Amino acid sequence: MDDRNRMHTSRRHVLQGAAAFVPLAMIPGLARAETPERALFQKAVDGQRDDTIALIRDWIGNPTIAAEGRNVDKGADYMASLLRDASFDHAEIVKTDGVPGVFATLDAGAPKTVALYFMYDVKQFDPREWSSPPLEAKIVDRAPYGKVMIGRGAVNQKGPEGAFLGALHAFRKMGRKPPVNLVFVAEGEEEIGSPHFHQIVRRPDIMAALKKAQGVFMPAASQDPKTGAVTPDLGAKGIIECELVSSGETWGRGPARDIHSSFKAMVDSPVWHLVAALETLVTKDGNTPAIDGWFEHVRPLSDRERALIAQNAANASGPDWMKRYGVQHFIDDLPWDKAMERLVSQPTVNIEGLVAGYIGPGGKTILPGRAAAKLDLRLVPNQTRAEAETKLRAHLKKRGFGDIEVNVTGGYDPTETPEDARIVQAQLEVYRRAGVDIALNPRRAGSWPGSVFTSPPVSLPASHFGFGHGSGAHAPDEYYVIESSNPKVTGLTGTMMGHVDFLYEMAR
Amino acid sequence: MDDRNRMHTSRRHVLQGAAAFVPLAMIPGLARAETPERALFQKAVDGQRDDTIALIRDWIGNPTIAAEGRNVDKGADYMASLLRDASFDHAEIVKTDGVPGVFATLDAGAPKTVALYFMYDVKQFDPREWSSPPLEAKIVDRAPYGKVMIGRGAVNQKGPEGAFLGALHAFRKMGRKPPVNLVFVAEGEEEIGSPHFHQIVRRPDIMAALKKAQGVFMPAASQDPKTGAVTPDLGAKGIIECELVSSGETWGRGPARDIHSSFKAMVDSPVWHLVAALETLVTKDGNTPAIDGWFEHVRPLSDRERALIAQNAANASGPDWMKRYGVQHFIDDLPWDKAMERLVSQPTVNIEGLVAGYIGPGGKTILPGRAAAKLDLRLVPNQTRAEAETKLRAHLKKRGFGDIEVNVTGGYDPTETPEDARIVQAQLEVYRRAGVDIALNPRRAGSWPGSVFTSPPVSLPASHFGFGHGSGAHAPDEYYVIESSNPKVTGLTGTMMGHVDFLYEMAR
Repeated sequence: MDDRNRMHTSRRHVLQGAAAFVPLAMIPGLARAETPERALFQKAVDGQRDDTIALIRDWIGNPTIAAEGRNVDKGADYMASLLRDASFDHAEIVKTDGVPGVFATLDAGAPKTVALYFMYDVKQFDPREWSSPPLEAKIVDRAPYGKVMIGRGAVNQKGPEGAFLGALHAFRKMGRKPPVNLVFVAEGEEEIGSPHFHQIVRRPDIMAALKKAQGVFMPAASQDPKTGAVTPDLGAKGIIECELVSSGETWGRGPARDIHSSFKAMVDSPVWHLVAALETLVTKDGNTPAIDGWFEHVRPLSDRERALIAQNAANASGPDWMKRYGVQHFIDDLPWDKAMERLVSQPTVNIEGLVAGYIGPGGKTILPGRAAAKLDLRLVPNQTRAEAETKLRAHLKKRGFGDIEVNVTGGYDPTETPEDARIVQAQLEVYRRAGVDIALNPRRAGSWPGSVFTSPPVSLPASHFGFGHGSGAHAPDEYYVIESSNPKVTGLTGTMMGHVDFLYEMAR
Repeated sequence: MDDRNRMHTSRRHVLQGAAAFVPLAMIPGLARAETPERALFQKAVDGQRDDTIALIRDWIGNPTIAAEGRNVDKGADYMASLLRDASFDHAEIVKTDGVPGVFATLDAGAPKTVALYFMYDVKQFDPREWSSPPLEAKIVDRAPYGKVMIGRGAVNQKGPEGAFLGALHAFRKMGRKPPVNLVFVAEGEEEIGSPHFHQIVRRPDIMAALKKAQGVFMPAASQDPKTGAVTPDLGAKGIIECELVSSGETWGRGPARDIHSSFKAMVDSPVWHLVAALETLVTKDGNTPAIDGWFEHVRPLSDRERALIAQNAANASGPDWMKRYGVQHFIDDLPWDKAMERLVSQPTVNIEGLVAGYIGPGGKTILPGRAAAKLDLRLVPNQTRAEAETKLRAHLKKRGFGDIEVNVTGGYDPTETPEDARIVQAQLEVYRRAGVDIALNPRRAGSWPGSVFTSPPVSLPASHFGFGHGSGAHAPDEYYVIESSNPKVTGLTGTMMGHVDFLYEMAR
């Protein structure tokens, strides 16, 4: 899905300003510890800087774009080569019903194991919109960030992933194994909603390997560009994306194709049929799902979640947020803290797009034979994607809209990772040691395929981790900071060093 | 508007098969009479054939397209030249707030006057979709019609208009004046809904000239290609075309531009706002306007109208119509004759197009800042365009949708011309003399700017007239029959001769 980095960026804006420290009391039994021989690692990582830049740059030059069928046959090979180079002792292509994935392992002979999730695909791009060629990954000065690499995938996700691989190369150069065993899964369809990722993760031997891990994480550029603060998520909403299509053909009423609009007087309209169906899905104000049984399994916020939201709201400025997004009022004129609570807690039915008939300038007197609405429905615990799809179809059918096609194009269950999971606590410790402000986010309002790990049968804590900053995922001039002008934000080598620290912390 | 020829074509399909004669008893006091010296005229018209083809061809080669701003400064000059060449003694460009029109007169020193309405603009076209270049107006064999001219504007409306001008050239060649004086108005914005045509028609001196006429007509290709039958209209529905636009900017709620869809949980949606507004405009089935007071001035069908509809329904095959248009059921499962009655009598609210947010393949997780619906609302007597617009706005405002922009892009009042008007009776007589089947249509369900003439202050009977056949208005390979393979349908010279007969009939 396209949510991770955009939400990420937006959360940054929400939370800019002083973020709240998580009180130490929250982390019982966790003593502070340094990475052993840290200065040696720092040197090795510094020496690995240029090779890591080259690695990321070459990878950006070989984009896989599932939506366009671009390089879908070679992207997994490329990914597997990167892994072998970085000391993985096993790396194999995993066929799916779509673009293949990669499964890899690095046996360090360590008592503990950590899992990794990578995406090797990137979002579509139009080079004409870029100030620097999107596949050349040039490094340019960009105030106030410093030296940044500009390219498609720079932050989403090849830059952060490349930084992790660079850290492994530092281990290799030092002739050492990482302090934990690694289990690795990657997909090439993240940007189209990970439709086949479960086929990789649930392959029995892969699932068995994953289950040995304490948790799974995806490298990310997590720091606010101004404050350096991080806001780790304890979960994410789920989502269904679908297209509702009303057509004369499947309805058996209205025209099979566009006809002259004067015939409306004697012929039904598939467009009005769609409008009538849509109108039943939400309350009159469009703000609350009205699909039968939608809230049946929705669990209310816990006191801890409510407290974290209140803290996050207090850390950030509602007016600033509203100004940035051109929003004058929240739903029901809620105050900022209640709006944030709604953001985290409420399922949504959103219309991403509507398209029917003539959409050019002016008008055209036609009665369209077809109308479509693109929806995304965000899900909260304990809704599931399967439940939501079933309920949506049943709701429409019950109301005489059973003919309307519901084409589900992707989706995930909600993701939840317990706050006391090692994968969460270890990153908090590493951030804390670095003097970085932390504000835990109980649930991101955007979505990512974390539920593939956190839901049964895998049932593994899942998170993102990583120092550094970048932005512009899915947009032109996507960038990733290589050398940071802001001492609160790491550059590439600082980010690589963060992964060394994190692996040692996970090894404890 | 784009209705004239398309409706025309569709009515042909509706009415193909034996059409009903209008009983002679309907036309009291009208004796049959021949055009004097008809054989001489026939010879003159035949001699004018090639020049008329050249006239139409050259005109097609100089298209004015208001929607594209193409040749909008020279089209009126071209039109005026054609008129001067065809013996009009006065022809002037009439400036408007849009594309200029033309006003011309031909004083024949005759006791009676006939007015003419021309459009000199044409619809947009894409040459790649044509089998013959749309501006070259080549004449090709096209079974079963015969030799046809293919070009943009061939039937809509340069071919039929050129045939009339060709008839005037025949008079000129014979050294004669037409038997009636002519008053001529033309516009260059018909294809964008005639937004400024009233500025031409209501200029005091032009209106005074028009008021001297017995009626106004537009040359048209009126014959069914199979049966040769004609179906003159006694009026047409009116129309408003408008775009309803919901945006965060004008609403003051929702985002000012597209934002990430996860924010739907705390931000209102201008798309849902539009859906909620649309839903109030019609009954649940989308088939009857539900706008406050919409039916206040709607007059029921007269017995005569009902009889004409029944006759037309009996002349045509409902199943054939349904097959042609891919329609399996009429509204409310009405039988064919009742569907035809609904077609003629009922106002409509139709959605021509919907557009909001992301409309490409797949999905995109955005909460759109703007949504628009393109509507056409067909009006029946005695609704007016002004009344309809006022009621639509009031309806929306009353329900909390006053922020939704209602951008009216064009429209006309309904058109009505009495059956006993000379402009109607004269054409019936000419058709009858030619042995052509006639089925009067009480009201076309499509729209044309006839109300500019038929409504106050001009209050002139208005109609279309013309033999011949053509089709494909607004579509690729638009054509006009030059030589007809079907003896029941005239070619170009027969059509020209029809105008000679018509002018003499109007002179009686």
